[in-house]
Amino acid sequence: MLASSAVHEMSEPDCWRSLALSDLGRLAVVGPDGVDIFPVNYLAAGGAVVFRSAPGAKLAMLAGGADVAFEADGVEEPDRWSVVIHGRAQRLDADDEILASGILDLHPDAPREMNNFVRITPRRISGRRFRGDDRA
Amino acid sequence: MLASSAVHEMSEPDCWRSLALSDLGRLAVVGPDGVDIFPVNYLAAGGAVVFRSAPGAKLAMLAGGADVAFEADGVEEPDRWSVVIHGRAQRLDADDEILASGILDLHPDAPREMNNFVRITPRRISGRRFRGDDRA
Repeated sequence: MLASSAVHEMSEPDCWRSLALSDLGRLAVVGPDGVDIFPVNYLAAGGAVVFRSAPGAKLAMLAGGADVAFEADGVEEPDRWSVVIHGRAQRLDADDEILASGILDLHPDAPREMNNFVRITPRRISGRRFRGDDRA
Repeated sequence: MLASSAVHEMSEPDCWRSLALSDLGRLAVVGPDGVDIFPVNYLAAGGAVVFRSAPGAKLAMLAGGADVAFEADGVEEPDRWSVVIHGRAQRLDADDEILASGILDLHPDAPREMNNFVRITPRRISGRRFRGDDRA
């Protein structure tokens, strides 16, 4: 628990531990029409974030490799946490990489043809923990 | 309630109604170091999204006006919703604009010197509703 109004920078291990508590994050990427943002169902494991993607605009932006920012947040009462990753997204093509990622066990919230897998390799990870129960 | 596995595109009024259910969103913007993402405490009202910002990198990216993408999501059992806005962010300088926005009534989760106010004027708003209770 943090003192009211405190903001606490999270250590890298704490960032990964918190990321593992959720599976809904948001991906920011620059596409042909400018900056865009997508909710994604993710799995955080092995020092990377992996998610499924349906074919479409998002995958087209990422398939060749792209710099991205990724955010996930959640509640560990009475605190909130938010973790941000800056890194490189790359489509996983090799079956062994896909299997090793564990992503096949993650069922997406919005099921469609989600048979494309993207991994974000972090260049930087940071997080903040703050009180979330004192909103007016 | 939606049939399992259904994804439903939300109408614009439904997007605004759902946005009003939450006050935590994520802002994607392109800065000097590339794409970035920030959690923000927002207020959706009057056809715009307004949030407070502490002085810092985020505000510097936005102060002069910037194209942004914004996302918020939540749960209306048994469904999840996610709304995305593409638009222009602009710092509010005039006191009457700040008062009219209602943002002074919104207390941020991470209280610091949050005396800067930014409004996102949408160019496009879209949303999806999907089942969120059938994850494995």
